[in-house]
Amino acid sequence: MTLHAAYDPDNIFAKILRGEVPSVKVWEDDAVLAFMDVFPQSEGHVLVISKTSRARNLLEVEPETLARLAAAMQRTARAVEKALRPDGFQIMQFNGAAGGQTVFHLHFHVIPRWTDRPLKGHAQAPMADAETLRALADRIAAELD
Amino acid sequence: MTLHAAYDPDNIFAKILRGEVPSVKVWEDDAVLAFMDVFPQSEGHVLVISKTSRARNLLEVEPETLARLAAAMQRTARAVEKALRPDGFQIMQFNGAAGGQTVFHLHFHVIPRWTDRPLKGHAQAPMADAETLRALADRIAAELD
Repeated sequence: MTLHAAYDPDNIFAKILRGEVPSVKVWEDDAVLAFMDVFPQSEGHVLVISKTSRARNLLEVEPETLARLAAAMQRTARAVEKALRPDGFQIMQFNGAAGGQTVFHLHFHVIPRWTDRPLKGHAQAPMADAETLRALADRIAAELD
Repeated sequence: MTLHAAYDPDNIFAKILRGEVPSVKVWEDDAVLAFMDVFPQSEGHVLVISKTSRARNLLEVEPETLARLAAAMQRTARAVEKALRPDGFQIMQFNGAAGGQTVFHLHFHVIPRWTDRPLKGHAQAPMADAETLRALADRIAAELD
């Protein structure tokens, strides 16, 4: 998929936002949704998306939406850090298939890292079971400011 | 380096901001500086940093600074995309040594990607010569909105 194309309203995140596909929510407000990645690259891998924008990538996103996403990414990272005490974490945001993007609804990855645990491949990690993800989401949500 | 430590005013980006170490600037304003990574993971790899904050990482950064950085990251990515026409690009932001961070002044990587070019390792790529970086920075700066 090129960087420049129309938004596909049937992408998996759009379906999650419409409630057509289940997700393991960490938190949401009127603008953003934070939920567990079902193919976690590490324990506690969370995705942050806009609930209102049809931006496919960073090039397209409206300034106000981007500001809300950035703040949400920080709020999520802080809670992940308090809940799971990783040694570090990474923010990743992929644009275009050549940039590693697999779902064409703008999203930010919050990926905890531990010194002794290698990162699993993006979109190649095994699917996590919903119960494990729900327990992690609850631990993270409990640390939200 | 842990996620929680004091800001080191002698980190390399602080030295760049004080003009003690040269950098190849793409653009700046009162709040942010965008400059070429001297160990580019791909052609056109740009770093975006705050000029005013002493935040080491995403956990620490002030809301207003984060909003300015996010907008600057988008402005930079749009210019990179117009100037170099990559097939995609990646935003990366590393926190803590375990998260891949090597300079402890908060920074966002804007990394163009091409389908047929593998990514070079972070902080392992060969050092680029200043003339090549200057030419790339000029091409990117010419496309800034």
